[in-house]
Formats: sequence, structure tokens, C-alpha cells
Amino acid sequence: MQVVVPYTTRDPKSRLADVLSLAERRAFARAMRDDVLDAVRAAGETPTLLTADESDADGADAPAVVDDRPLTPAVNAVLETHAETESVAVVMADLALATPDALSRLFESEGDVVVAPGRGGGTNALVVRHPDFRVDYHGASYRDHRRLAAAADLSVTDVDSMRLSTDVDEPSDLAEVLLHGTGAARDWLVDAGFELDVADGRVGVTRE
Amino acid sequence: MQVVVPYTTRDPKSRLADVLSLAERRAFARAMRDDVLDAVRAAGETPTLLTADESDADGADAPAVVDDRPLTPAVNAVLETHAETESVAVVMADLALATPDALSRLFESEGDVVVAPGRGGGTNALVVRHPDFRVDYHGASYRDHRRLAAAADLSVTDVDSMRLSTDVDEPSDLAEVLLHGTGAARDWLVDAGFELDVADGRVGVTRE
Repeated sequence: MQVVVPYTTRDPKSRLADVLSLAERRAFARAMRDDVLDAVRAAGETPTLLTADESDADGADAPAVVDDRPLTPAVNAVLETHAETESVAVVMADLALATPDALSRLFESEGDVVVAPGRGGGTNALVVRHPDFRVDYHGASYRDHRRLAAAADLSVTDVDSMRLSTDVDEPSDLAEVLLHGTGAARDWLVDAGFELDVADGRVGVTRE
Repeated sequence: MQVVVPYTTRDPKSRLADVLSLAERRAFARAMRDDVLDAVRAAGETPTLLTADESDADGADAPAVVDDRPLTPAVNAVLETHAETESVAVVMADLALATPDALSRLFESEGDVVVAPGRGGGTNALVVRHPDFRVDYHGASYRDHRRLAAAADLSVTDVDSMRLSTDVDEPSDLAEVLLHGTGAARDWLVDAGFELDVADGRVGVTRE
């Protein structure tokens, strides 16, 4: 199985700009990237970074494929190269809660296309086992990927995972990392002074 | 196994007040309740409603236990009555995405205490298999329940389910119901004129 982790340092995690500086967002995104790479390896697979620039792979313990196009054409180029001969998995680099168990469930689920939906209609991870399938990450990609697969007469399986559904984009997502994370990303937030803000309703975060 | 579904019609879903009237929130909460009861039955168990008032069970295809105290003491009374002799599951009535598969994973997970975390640190569903465990739903109850179990030397298992992690409290949660729901709650939202609002980032909802 070819496991690809798209990752770029160009204005990373822009929706966290209210709570983290650009340099901090870069460092935090890198910690999440490394947690995801570790989890993929612990699930028994060998990850490859899909980056926009060679420097994006700095410090990462994984080889990189460089493609400076947007996400959709870059991932589709990977599918064109590999999906004819092997399964291809695409795992986003901001899944800070991903565990080997959750990724094993993804990798082992049957179906021509296996989708782990993200909160808000995204596609946080998927496995493609048919050469005809192509991605479209724009908009509600979870729904679109299901439609595209159905239109091509491909079977689709959902992976029901809170951990894989949690991509870290917005300040409220940081609470999930503090609550459920176990790796470098959680450590980074704690070192940066973030802690849970417990009130009634859902918890948020505060920073010292 | 005793499966309890806490449910009240007193100011239900107050954080949806900006998008739904009180009467609408009552009707929507009832549709979610009925979806949860259906999913529990389809998972092979017999649900009991835990209500604050007898009328809360109106129209529900399940028996009701009435206890007008807040959630924590009402659930703890159920544990006191039943946990000595059988497993007790507590499943929130606003898990509009709950499926029989997701609930079966919950019911079948091993451990003295099994927790399905909710977004923002809540406890959306749990199974208790030890008479000494008591709940505390105030604040970040997921973390507290893990601590309480550890303090009592009980084993704790997490259930990693996007469907069980999605309690429907806030307007953005309605998008999840439109995307992933399959029952009465999704139908209710569609009939009420809600649809997905697809832009970049996470999708939201609009109403006609």
C-alpha cells in the first residue's frame, strides 16, 4: 500500500491565526505531521510526504514527493501513478489524534474506496483500490467522493472514527488535542501554555 | 444489559435557539430521541427512557423511568439500582448519527467502564460493568470519568466513533446530521428547510 501524507508549510493552519503566530503555526503543523507519520509507521505502513516544496520535508522521517500544484491535482497525480498496481491511502497531516489502531481500521476496511469523514464534510483520510477513482477536495468533499465513487460503480466504505474525523483547523479543535492527543502535537500545545477551559457545555482552550 | 437514554423536554437544545424556535427544538429533539431508541433496538438491546417528567416519554416506543433530579444524580440512581447485577449503558438522546453498528461496538467493548467521548470533552455514551462506578456529567466529563475509574482501579476502554462523538448541540452540528444522518432527525431538518452551505473550509447550514 502506498500511503501519502499531504503537507505544506505555506500559510499552514490559517484558521488558527487568532491564537498562534505564523511561526507557531508552522511548528505546530510540523508536530502534527510527525505524529501522523509515526502513527502510519506504527500501523505497519511506510508513509511518503506529498509536499509543495522540498523544504517542507525538513526534519521529517519520511521520503517526499514534491508537487507544487494544489491538493486535488497533486493527489490525483499520485493516484495516476500508483492506483493501477497497488492500493493508495491519503492521510491528512493534521490528524493529531490519529492512532495506529484507527489507521489500521482505515487500511483494513474493504471497499474500492474507503473514506474517513472529517468534521464539516471533509475527507480526512481515504484508501483507493480502483484505478478509475479521482479525488476532489473542494467543498463538501466527503459527499462528493461518495458521489464520484457511486457514479463510477465503485463500492464505498465509511470508517467511523472520532480520531480520524478530527482534523485540527480551528481553535476549538485544540481542546480535542489536549483531551485525546498523546504525541508531539499535544506536547507542543502544553509547552506553548494551552490548557483546557472547562465550563458548562463543550470545553475550549485558554493560553497562559 | 440495561440501556438508559436520558431525555427531557425542558428547554431542550438551548444552544440551537438562534436557529430553531422552542417548539421546533422540542420536535427536533424528539426526532433525535426516536432515532436513538431505534438504533439501540436495532443493536439488539431494549432501551429505557430516563425522563424528568412522564410526558417526556409521549409518543416514544420505550418504557420510561421518571426522575426529576439533574442528569448526574438521576443516572447514578440507575447505577445504584442495576449495576450490582447487570451491565448498564447510558446513551444520550441527541446522538442523531448513532447507528446499530456504532452502538454494537460500544456495547461489545470490554472493560469495567467503556466511554464514547463527545466533542468538547463530554461523555456521549458509556457502559458500566462495575457497581462502584458513579458518573459526573459536569464539565469535561470524559476526562473526569477516566480519572474516577482509574481512582477506583477500574479498567477503561474508549470507543473511537465519529458517530457516537457527535452530539447535536450547536448549529454547526446540524451539518453533520444533514451529511451523515439517515433517520427522523435528518428528515426533520430537511422538512424544516435546512440544507448544507458549502464553501471552503467546513460546511455549515442555511435555511430557506
